[in-house]
Amino acid sequence: MSGETPSQPRQTGQAGPPLLDLTIDNITPNTVRINSQSADARLTYLMARLVTHLHDFARETRLSTAEWTAAIEFLIACGKICSDVRNVCVLLCEFILLSDVLGLSLLVDNINHPTPAGGTEGSVLGPFHTHDAPVLAHGASMTSDPAGEPMLAVCTVKDARGQPVPGVTVDIWETDSSGHYDVQHADRDAPSERCVMVTDDQGRFCFRGLKPVSYPIPHDGPVGRLLQLLKRHCWRPAHVHFMFGKDGWDRLVTALYLRGDPYETSDAVFGVKQSLVIDLDKVDEATAEEYGVEEGTWLLKHDFVLATQEETEKLRDQLATEALQKLGLNLKLVDHLPVPDLD
Amino acid sequence: MSGETPSQPRQTGQAGPPLLDLTIDNITPNTVRINSQSADARLTYLMARLVTHLHDFARETRLSTAEWTAAIEFLIACGKICSDVRNVCVLLCEFILLSDVLGLSLLVDNINHPTPAGGTEGSVLGPFHTHDAPVLAHGASMTSDPAGEPMLAVCTVKDARGQPVPGVTVDIWETDSSGHYDVQHADRDAPSERCVMVTDDQGRFCFRGLKPVSYPIPHDGPVGRLLQLLKRHCWRPAHVHFMFGKDGWDRLVTALYLRGDPYETSDAVFGVKQSLVIDLDKVDEATAEEYGVEEGTWLLKHDFVLATQEETEKLRDQLATEALQKLGLNLKLVDHLPVPDLD
Repeated sequence: MSGETPSQPRQTGQAGPPLLDLTIDNITPNTVRINSQSADARLTYLMARLVTHLHDFARETRLSTAEWTAAIEFLIACGKICSDVRNVCVLLCEFILLSDVLGLSLLVDNINHPTPAGGTEGSVLGPFHTHDAPVLAHGASMTSDPAGEPMLAVCTVKDARGQPVPGVTVDIWETDSSGHYDVQHADRDAPSERCVMVTDDQGRFCFRGLKPVSYPIPHDGPVGRLLQLLKRHCWRPAHVHFMFGKDGWDRLVTALYLRGDPYETSDAVFGVKQSLVIDLDKVDEATAEEYGVEEGTWLLKHDFVLATQEETEKLRDQLATEALQKLGLNLKLVDHLPVPDLD
Repeated sequence: MSGETPSQPRQTGQAGPPLLDLTIDNITPNTVRINSQSADARLTYLMARLVTHLHDFARETRLSTAEWTAAIEFLIACGKICSDVRNVCVLLCEFILLSDVLGLSLLVDNINHPTPAGGTEGSVLGPFHTHDAPVLAHGASMTSDPAGEPMLAVCTVKDARGQPVPGVTVDIWETDSSGHYDVQHADRDAPSERCVMVTDDQGRFCFRGLKPVSYPIPHDGPVGRLLQLLKRHCWRPAHVHFMFGKDGWDRLVTALYLRGDPYETSDAVFGVKQSLVIDLDKVDEATAEEYGVEEGTWLLKHDFVLATQEETEKLRDQLATEALQKLGLNLKLVDHLPVPDLD
């Protein structure tokens, strides 16, 4: 930066009254005002609410300089571990982890993907989905881990009226038997315990994987230290992730959880829903023959129900409108997102 | 991390009701509850308010997944520029800059350092203070920049009753004539435009520096892009930073601003207070002789008034108590900081 001429032109004609003598009380309206000069009503609204909540937080807690400094250092540490340790996986980001353990990820997911009656509920995406999983044929194995307990999964995807949905792309991922996703292994040279399938004309897909195990979320960084300070554990109950995508249908990110897991009711990232808790079965003789697996292998059977994009959007708009009315704020939806109603 | 055995022990006995089926409405009390297991009442209170505001923000804005992703990417970019580009200066951190442009830094400063009647008001610290400035003798020059306009500063430090305060450590820092602090130059080999002085038995200190110039805050990173999106400029009016420290006295972080600067009423980080806006004078013949500078040199004369730690603490507690009462929250001060009053 040395000796550089500043690239941003000098502007002095800032709109509105002077920013002078800002106090504990008037700093908020003044910051909101100076942030309200763009033509983007949504950006203006987001910034206004962000600044108001940030300032209210500091006022209500009388945030000390030492605490502010600790917060800055926490964010620096989150940024550092993102770029240093976890280069293997771009998404394995401490800020996502922070959002997860603070319940924000679950909340944003619930807001954006409400479940129409009868549909499969969503669950948190988490930081371990990748885009390099191989597309496998039905019945193929997605695991290379000889230590885990084999599991056959036989699933269908249907619509709300029980009709099969063919041609749905299904991303599936889980940990290996040690409780680590492939991307957590420094020597990962190929995807493992993950695959992509496409539902057939009966809406079916099936794969061979591992009976999932419970595992701790990454806790070698600042978020792990925060959980320790808060006397919270960092475990997630055993689950398999699924993501369903097809044009015209709401993208469903979800997971199935094993009943009886010690963390079933204390998931560190709040993802468990009772409708997603399942019992495993054992493969019987006929199924063993049909799928070419050993009799007695763990069997996961599940019917997923997708909602159309239109159904979800309609429900989301309706819930948003109801919630905003309850808040008593003068808002309207533009492109499905609230902005102040200035008309 | 590969193959590691998780170091955190499995704990299943999480207190309270099960975390299951969390919704847009019940995620907040449940997250607050799970964060309330430590014995540290202050930490519990901070986390409860943080989570509540974070969730309220998402609910009021119906935050979209795309917006959440943009926020995560913004934080990652802030972390990246902290560790990549700006290694020269540890404190030159994008998160501090973010706090500054959102008005949070000013607010936290106002909360923590209220000014008793007659005292010198504080201003934002900013990211450019360092700990390697040389201690200079009175009258010495702290600048190595031949291009700037020389300025002599003749100041005193007094208490509220007008008595001089000797032995105060004074940190002074400003930009060079190009509007850059020394730490912004990649080839910095020694501190420049900064020094430390100690007030004499009359509470006096004086130094030679440069007439300050207005300058843009660093805008090569995500915070700069945010300001552009918000149609805000990134300029600070010309100023010199001062920090005063002495045992028993409230540490005063402040700055003096030049009247008539084009950014006097639109400081990008909200630091200007009218009581800190000054007029420069010119050195007369007698002063020129006394300080060994040329007649007509710019002259900054100012009397700073320090408050004792006791005065500031008392005022801070009083303002906190009043503010919390106005909020109608059931809180008490413990170690000068609010926590819920459960008695």
